[in-house]
Amino acid sequence: MNVQTSDAIAIATAIRNGETTAKVVIESTLDRIAQHNPTLNCFTTITAEAAIAQAEQIDTAIAQGNDPGILAGVPFAAKNLFDIAGMTTLAGSKINAENPPASRDATAVARLKQAGAILVGALNMDEYAYGFVTENAHYGATHNPHDLTRIAGGSSGGSAAAVAAGLVPISLGSDTNGSIRVPAALCGIFGLKPTYGRLSRGGTFLFSASLDCIGPFARSQRDIAAVFDILQGSDPRDPICTQRPPQPCFPELDRGIEGLRIAVADGYFTQGAEPEAIEAVERVAQALGVAQRVNIPESHRARAAAYLITAVEGSNLHLKNLRSRPGDFDPATRDRFLAGALIPASWYVQAQRFRRWYRDRVREIFDRVDIILAPTTPCVAPPIGQEKMVIAGEEILVRPNLGRFTQPLSFIGLPILSFPVLSGGKLPLGVQIVAAPYNESAILRVAAAIGNSFLMSSLRED
Amino acid sequence: MNVQTSDAIAIATAIRNGETTAKVVIESTLDRIAQHNPTLNCFTTITAEAAIAQAEQIDTAIAQGNDPGILAGVPFAAKNLFDIAGMTTLAGSKINAENPPASRDATAVARLKQAGAILVGALNMDEYAYGFVTENAHYGATHNPHDLTRIAGGSSGGSAAAVAAGLVPISLGSDTNGSIRVPAALCGIFGLKPTYGRLSRGGTFLFSASLDCIGPFARSQRDIAAVFDILQGSDPRDPICTQRPPQPCFPELDRGIEGLRIAVADGYFTQGAEPEAIEAVERVAQALGVAQRVNIPESHRARAAAYLITAVEGSNLHLKNLRSRPGDFDPATRDRFLAGALIPASWYVQAQRFRRWYRDRVREIFDRVDIILAPTTPCVAPPIGQEKMVIAGEEILVRPNLGRFTQPLSFIGLPILSFPVLSGGKLPLGVQIVAAPYNESAILRVAAAIGNSFLMSSLRED
Repeated sequence: MNVQTSDAIAIATAIRNGETTAKVVIESTLDRIAQHNPTLNCFTTITAEAAIAQAEQIDTAIAQGNDPGILAGVPFAAKNLFDIAGMTTLAGSKINAENPPASRDATAVARLKQAGAILVGALNMDEYAYGFVTENAHYGATHNPHDLTRIAGGSSGGSAAAVAAGLVPISLGSDTNGSIRVPAALCGIFGLKPTYGRLSRGGTFLFSASLDCIGPFARSQRDIAAVFDILQGSDPRDPICTQRPPQPCFPELDRGIEGLRIAVADGYFTQGAEPEAIEAVERVAQALGVAQRVNIPESHRARAAAYLITAVEGSNLHLKNLRSRPGDFDPATRDRFLAGALIPASWYVQAQRFRRWYRDRVREIFDRVDIILAPTTPCVAPPIGQEKMVIAGEEILVRPNLGRFTQPLSFIGLPILSFPVLSGGKLPLGVQIVAAPYNESAILRVAAAIGNSFLMSSLRED
Repeated sequence: MNVQTSDAIAIATAIRNGETTAKVVIESTLDRIAQHNPTLNCFTTITAEAAIAQAEQIDTAIAQGNDPGILAGVPFAAKNLFDIAGMTTLAGSKINAENPPASRDATAVARLKQAGAILVGALNMDEYAYGFVTENAHYGATHNPHDLTRIAGGSSGGSAAAVAAGLVPISLGSDTNGSIRVPAALCGIFGLKPTYGRLSRGGTFLFSASLDCIGPFARSQRDIAAVFDILQGSDPRDPICTQRPPQPCFPELDRGIEGLRIAVADGYFTQGAEPEAIEAVERVAQALGVAQRVNIPESHRARAAAYLITAVEGSNLHLKNLRSRPGDFDPATRDRFLAGALIPASWYVQAQRFRRWYRDRVREIFDRVDIILAPTTPCVAPPIGQEKMVIAGEEILVRPNLGRFTQPLSFIGLPILSFPVLSGGKLPLGVQIVAAPYNESAILRVAAAIGNSFLMSSLRED
């Protein structure tokens, strides 16, 4: 079994069957991180000692015939806005580096550990999760494993690049306007932004409370489903986290897609993108035999409103530091926070009012279809440091426009999987598989039906 | 039966028993309105013709042995922000007078009519419900029936004065920060602000969506209970209106208060008030044998946050007109709307965040007590036109400070009855009876237990 190319379930199965041990897997993982991280810059912290200790415990448990958990021995890592007991939660910032260590793990980290997964470190991100590029002024840029001169996307860039590079099979990230989906697409892996409120945000450093979601990255649909199922369930630490009982998706994966009404997003979601991004959607639609198209009205306004709400809620969290020590922020982040702090409340209220209108329109669409397909990003990963790009003949800014297609959909809390589409030799792209709230199982059924035919290779050759 | 002094239930009973007719009651009511309204300025519209026609229908129904409804023949009126089919809904403004007539009655008006009550007109208010004084620049000040040189309170001033003057036994108003409770107290009658979201706002002109409630005014507890029960029930016209099935309060009135834990609000709610306002609470507490006191922390911040949210949400509704025709607003209202439009969104988000904290603290208090008593206003009705007043040795503005004790409680959606306290010869005051959300029945049981001993006279002598 090759730890670099296997998915989490394959690794766990091999360990459980005695084909390898957790310790071997973790040592091989740590070796690989030590070898590649200096180039990729995915990790901001590596928890080698604790990981090896946990691996030994798991191997002992298996030797004694105890159940070590469904993901026993599987290495994982988390965006550095998830609390890790005994470590300071950076959230990509220099200011937060002054905070005391977290007293306990974030709920999502704790649940994965309880399932036997082994935390090997914390991952790089845009400061305070405010960005689509992971070019962090304090901790450096994360490099895309498919082309080291290019960005990994953001804000969960470290989480996506670590999985795409085969450093870990699964990782945790967070998505406010696309921060899971954009880097998943640009790195050619799976990234799931679940329904708003479905997974606990307990012990994570928030960015924009009415938008933030946490979710998994993986190299297979089944890993996404397995991790999603482990993370489900209400949590007293997160009052927003739904009280709905968990509904496992993993057993649904092979149900097929008969009866599911699938459509391609039209209008806004076909404009302002490179032809290859639109083609990726068409290829997936053809594979699924989908001809129907739907138009989601006023999606450009939804994007504007999502921006505005993000800037307002985000800046509110940092007002005190923006006033007293603006020089300690990442310049790219600071200026947007400052602008956000100056937005009139009346605009915010108007954006929230529009949000309800837009949610109701999309709800009507989901009376007629179960799944909507849309591009994840308008283009492949741009080069690191590039400020502008030309898309559809127009020169536009890189940073904001990577979220063009992700923002309007997460704005109203929909669950979305970014499905990787890779063509031999080309850089990866993603297709968003979108469903009505709490219908992650339909998304994962569609992903399973598409299969791996579009995944020529999600791994960089060593 | 004296229409001027009887409550709604007594009037309905007399009509049902044949002691009088709906037509006699309505004609007497219209006569009395014609006689006193020029002095009081409660009504902005009188619907005489429709009222007489409805009265004739009810008398016919009774003559034919049909059930005419529990409030059959009882006159009522509604603050002029409730839609009345065929009439333009003014909401106290000159601008809205340009609107076309409403196509159907507000849900609350329709439900009272369905119960047999007869609408006799629309009532004066502060422009767009933004005020505690009902000194309307367009439609004039409403005068307090207890002293015509004084304000009736606001913003539902016409609703309170019409009931206190014996023009109608019941009326409808709305309460955002105290707009039912303040005028109820200053006019010496009952006013109920129900739990946020419990009664439908369908067909009313909103002021601040996250605070607005509608509710009844009356001269007896049992009328409040009867009207509240009629108004309960979900409504597709109001998405905020709860889906809870109605829970009638009227049958609970005589259950007594054994088992109810009652306490007096301490700290903030004993400061910044004239001694007589505090004494009114003490008198009610003594009558109920209440010694316990509770402190609601940070209530001064709750008031500030309620102000801020009101200004923001209110101004957002009127932005277009504020930009294009500011001169058509009531000057007192306009300047606060303009200020509200300039508040940074970050403050609004902070106020909403504090709101959740405060709601959780108050929820903890309601684990220990069922009912909290507090003053409604810090003083009796001030003279019309008076801008400042001296309270507790400090000169303060009249308009904002009348809501000192009402704002922190409605801020988090609690149900509250303002109970009238009158001492011979003195001007009326009110005591707020406050409960946890959806516990209106406990409030009305307490009101029934206090009885009418404090109501020396709620009516002006002719």
